[in-house]
Amino acid sequence: MGFTQRRFLGVKPSKALLSLAFLLTFMLVGSQGESNAMDNAATERMAEESHRQDSANLLIFIMLLTLTILTIWLFKHRRFRFLHETGLAMIYGLLVGVILRFGVHVPQTISDVILTCAVNASPATLLVNVSGRFYEYTLKGEVSQGKGHQVQDDEMLRKVTFDPEVFFNILLPPIIFHAGYSLKRRHFFRNIGSILTYAFMGTVISCFVIGLVMYGFVSFMKVVGQLGGDFYFTDCLFFGAIVSATDPVTVLAIFNELKVDVDLYALLFGESVLNDAVAIVLSSSIVAYQPEGDNSHNFEAMAMLKSFGIFLVVFSGSLALGVATGVMTFTKLRDFCLLETALFFLMSWSTFLLAEACGFTGVVAVLFCGITQAHYTYNNLSPESQDRTKQLFELLNFLAENFIFSYMGLTLFSFQSHVFNPLFIIGAFVAVFLGRAANIYPLSFLLNLGRKNKIGFNLQHVMMFAGLRGAMTFALSIRDTATYARQMMFSTNLLIVFITVWFCGGGTTPMLSFMRIPVGVDSDQEHSRRSTKHESAWPFRIWYTFDHNYLKPLLTHSGPPLTATLPACCGPLARCLTSPQAYENEGQLRDDDSELILNDASVSDMYADVTVSTDASGSHTINRNRSSTTSTEGGPSDGVLDHELTLAEHEVAIRGTRLVLPMDDPVNLLDEN
Amino acid sequence: MGFTQRRFLGVKPSKALLSLAFLLTFMLVGSQGESNAMDNAATERMAEESHRQDSANLLIFIMLLTLTILTIWLFKHRRFRFLHETGLAMIYGLLVGVILRFGVHVPQTISDVILTCAVNASPATLLVNVSGRFYEYTLKGEVSQGKGHQVQDDEMLRKVTFDPEVFFNILLPPIIFHAGYSLKRRHFFRNIGSILTYAFMGTVISCFVIGLVMYGFVSFMKVVGQLGGDFYFTDCLFFGAIVSATDPVTVLAIFNELKVDVDLYALLFGESVLNDAVAIVLSSSIVAYQPEGDNSHNFEAMAMLKSFGIFLVVFSGSLALGVATGVMTFTKLRDFCLLETALFFLMSWSTFLLAEACGFTGVVAVLFCGITQAHYTYNNLSPESQDRTKQLFELLNFLAENFIFSYMGLTLFSFQSHVFNPLFIIGAFVAVFLGRAANIYPLSFLLNLGRKNKIGFNLQHVMMFAGLRGAMTFALSIRDTATYARQMMFSTNLLIVFITVWFCGGGTTPMLSFMRIPVGVDSDQEHSRRSTKHESAWPFRIWYTFDHNYLKPLLTHSGPPLTATLPACCGPLARCLTSPQAYENEGQLRDDDSELILNDASVSDMYADVTVSTDASGSHTINRNRSSTTSTEGGPSDGVLDHELTLAEHEVAIRGTRLVLPMDDPVNLLDEN
Repeated sequence: MGFTQRRFLGVKPSKALLSLAFLLTFMLVGSQGESNAMDNAATERMAEESHRQDSANLLIFIMLLTLTILTIWLFKHRRFRFLHETGLAMIYGLLVGVILRFGVHVPQTISDVILTCAVNASPATLLVNVSGRFYEYTLKGEVSQGKGHQVQDDEMLRKVTFDPEVFFNILLPPIIFHAGYSLKRRHFFRNIGSILTYAFMGTVISCFVIGLVMYGFVSFMKVVGQLGGDFYFTDCLFFGAIVSATDPVTVLAIFNELKVDVDLYALLFGESVLNDAVAIVLSSSIVAYQPEGDNSHNFEAMAMLKSFGIFLVVFSGSLALGVATGVMTFTKLRDFCLLETALFFLMSWSTFLLAEACGFTGVVAVLFCGITQAHYTYNNLSPESQDRTKQLFELLNFLAENFIFSYMGLTLFSFQSHVFNPLFIIGAFVAVFLGRAANIYPLSFLLNLGRKNKIGFNLQHVMMFAGLRGAMTFALSIRDTATYARQMMFSTNLLIVFITVWFCGGGTTPMLSFMRIPVGVDSDQEHSRRSTKHESAWPFRIWYTFDHNYLKPLLTHSGPPLTATLPACCGPLARCLTSPQAYENEGQLRDDDSELILNDASVSDMYADVTVSTDASGSHTINRNRSSTTSTEGGPSDGVLDHELTLAEHEVAIRGTRLVLPMDDPVNLLDEN
Repeated sequence: MGFTQRRFLGVKPSKALLSLAFLLTFMLVGSQGESNAMDNAATERMAEESHRQDSANLLIFIMLLTLTILTIWLFKHRRFRFLHETGLAMIYGLLVGVILRFGVHVPQTISDVILTCAVNASPATLLVNVSGRFYEYTLKGEVSQGKGHQVQDDEMLRKVTFDPEVFFNILLPPIIFHAGYSLKRRHFFRNIGSILTYAFMGTVISCFVIGLVMYGFVSFMKVVGQLGGDFYFTDCLFFGAIVSATDPVTVLAIFNELKVDVDLYALLFGESVLNDAVAIVLSSSIVAYQPEGDNSHNFEAMAMLKSFGIFLVVFSGSLALGVATGVMTFTKLRDFCLLETALFFLMSWSTFLLAEACGFTGVVAVLFCGITQAHYTYNNLSPESQDRTKQLFELLNFLAENFIFSYMGLTLFSFQSHVFNPLFIIGAFVAVFLGRAANIYPLSFLLNLGRKNKIGFNLQHVMMFAGLRGAMTFALSIRDTATYARQMMFSTNLLIVFITVWFCGGGTTPMLSFMRIPVGVDSDQEHSRRSTKHESAWPFRIWYTFDHNYLKPLLTHSGPPLTATLPACCGPLARCLTSPQAYENEGQLRDDDSELILNDASVSDMYADVTVSTDASGSHTINRNRSSTTSTEGGPSDGVLDHELTLAEHEVAIRGTRLVLPMDDPVNLLDEN
């Protein structure tokens, strides 16, 4: 009691919150009356109990993941393709959700007591004076108003509910980074124009189409009295933005397994990676759209322009930041794999944090950081670190993805503020369908005008069909579930994800055969004669030359030395900027940039690439140094390997040192064609 | 306002907290008076600002780690051995701590406002009614009484302070698991008796010696009036327990580099791994020691016995749980590396969570889980997963360790309740020295009575010198810093860690030369003639035979099939319990169990092992399949490798399949000698 004078560090606060000094009633409510002040031991016991409960809850998720892994193994073993691991994780999540909801009754403990006090502000920290001891409380968030009491009810369900920010800050980054890092860059760059069109224009079109359709439905619902709360046009647009992020992970896994056309794969994968980034920035721009007249929710050109500005600034800022950190990771620690891997991991993470700290979007920054690191930094890593980093992010991606999907299943039952509105749900499915159609078909038509390698109607239908919704839609909709509109969106999105993942995911194989998409295509035999450079449009060709001649030598240890590519007048500068190793490796880079970074499932693909390039270049057997400790150069130029050499090799392996034999004749596929 | 009826799930609470209904004054305090109710947008902005701040704080740590890695690389590059990475991380942490403490002044934002309300209970959740909206607050912990105001002051410092449970639940488990998983088991088991003696008896002796010495010092301090609060004998014992956990990571790194005697290495490493487990359980048993008469803090036989019982139950329970989960991870997913690695990771984590949920000690469970998995499960993994899991835990261990040490450095300045008492600090150093001496010298004397391979005085001095304190001591002392006694312990422990890591870590190389410890010893040349089995005491020999003949075949795919080792009458049972692969691999297990799991830094050691065993077994060249995709069998029995074979090998590498050539003549070192 009495005033606690708040001291400030140097700066006087311009807007503090004094003079609210108010009285409030503070009520401790229970069902039975026993007044006992808790002593220290009781508090400790309480904390221990709560810790134990938390461990048990987390254990549920770990067990869910374990179960998913075991079942996936069974499916892979039996080549069962109708249910992907993500769909499976959702089903298990659903089951556990049902059990927790209807099966488990946790006896109430002392830790569940809830105090209600009415104040006029919600500070981030609260100090509560309990019989002379001070306890610190931190703001967890707002409890939705109408549901206030209900939420408190089910302690168990509340405990398995994560802070939505967990998805954004912990689970999404590795997924997005992995997507960027594992981008099949040669095919990606070959289709860059189309991918950018689908990802940017397509997402915006889809967002507005869905928004408009939903606005129609919502207006209709308002007329027939089916709407239980406010739902503005900005809400519709927001819904359009978050539901426009596609996640065809299921479809792509099947494509990979069946070896479907690489161009189709690249289009779908590239689109889905980039439209996540577009959707996240788009949705935050829509949230930022606030016309001057408060609560008017009318169209206002100024605010609209501001939103557009925010979109541009945030997107380009995040992109620049991601690329900058990616480029900065110019590692020279080749001799110490562990340090190198750790550094790589930390740099990716710090990109995310840096972007968030600057007010940009971490997820977007991490995506472009991944792409940049795959393009430049990867070439600087030692072969062992290349493997390690790939495996590490693959694992993180796998765990995070399955966790999100199983959590999604769980949420259907554990989330307590669901608003399932049949009309809205039907409207949403129609809108999503129309939005996807308005994205794919018109844009494909326009793109086909310019493409040599046309996107056929059957490919368009498959792209239409592969518009699954997944982790990003979920993370964006669970982020804010405070209002009626957001709750309805969340529940609807959950259903959209479930239906699309199960239905479209499971139907991919039949769809492919129905659409007569050829499977088992050896992509590189088909395309090896056409190089990335020559097939692409001129802006890309200029970029490619610039990248290959200047950026690669500057940022990696490979590629032609700058001394060879820069004009003679820049000689001294070029010498100082070129890595000494670049001279040794001159030309060795080859198409490292286009093939070495591959999707996890496409190792066999990669080796196929190598075989083909071997044929193309005549008699050279190209050894990729894939193994971590042994390295054998088996070209015919080495002559017959005799017993001594074998032993010597063993010696090398035994000493644990790495033997790197330079290529004696660089093969540059891209320049040859 | 008004009663919020709390409903309960099925069970009526026996002890609820009603009837406390009290009035409390709630004061919102600032320096300037502007009454404004925060609206939704403001709250959102606040949350955003806080999120940005959090990102920036985390970024500080990531940058610290990055800096540490870069400097370590420089040190390794220059073969600078006087400062280990942990010592370095601490120095950087210290620097950042100084900067944060004295250099940064964060302007106060709206989010820093603190409310004080006086109630008679500290529930886990608090609902605050802010002009009709409900905000949820969660209990963060108690704020130390006297420091109440001071703590709130430095928002920046408070923000970089982690919840102590983070150390226990997130950072320690990977470190401890890695220690168990990387245990050099052949040398460990050879010295198992001595290690257990040092770890169990030694830690208990050290704990009591330190406790008694400290009690003497504290009594003296009380007499001269230097003690500012209560300090009971149980506090002294608690201090003894937490400061008895040694962490000679620095010393071992240098041992590894210099190739010091493996027995010394095994003794130190084994002791430090196990005494962490002993110390953690011991400290919790001491906390549980509460004589009936409250606040009496006198000796009471009953309570003492109870504490001892708790120690036994918790330790053996955690051990059993860890071993059980380790054994259960009987993976057969060899074809899918990613799934296998993920499963392995999840099982280790679930061991920790399961133990915590059961009220055991997760850290201890994880340690024994690691040892068991290294012993059994590791043999079931595919070669690629063996690499992956090792690398993954190596990375996690590296990051967690350096994070803890840099956080330690930071804490010296950022922690706000330090109690530095010169007398207590001097006493602590004396006590730690005496405790270590009372552990090493008498026990070594006793052990030498039974050991064939005596522990010389120079080795004893080195063991004495290598009693560094590290992560475990820190984590145990930061866990509870509420009382005066605990705060003084924490500050003192911080200094003990700093001094021992810098002084003893840096002095290892001079110490080794001063003590005439031979360096550059090729351990296995020295010892290869003496097998683990024959050298050890009979209880261990029985266990070894049992393990090798029955447990290994039962729990792994390797070792002699059970059909060969079980009596004929158990034939059908044996057939059904033996893995089909065991027949193929018969004998191939060899000493996989003793050498394959190695410390990260000892790869060259391992290969040395292989070379030696090759010599010992005659003409066999043993290929370990270390590389992930290629596998060449280069024994002379294969004859001259010609061009075709080389090409064929390439073919194999190119297809991405694994070629496993069976050993045509199993070499069993242990049975040979």
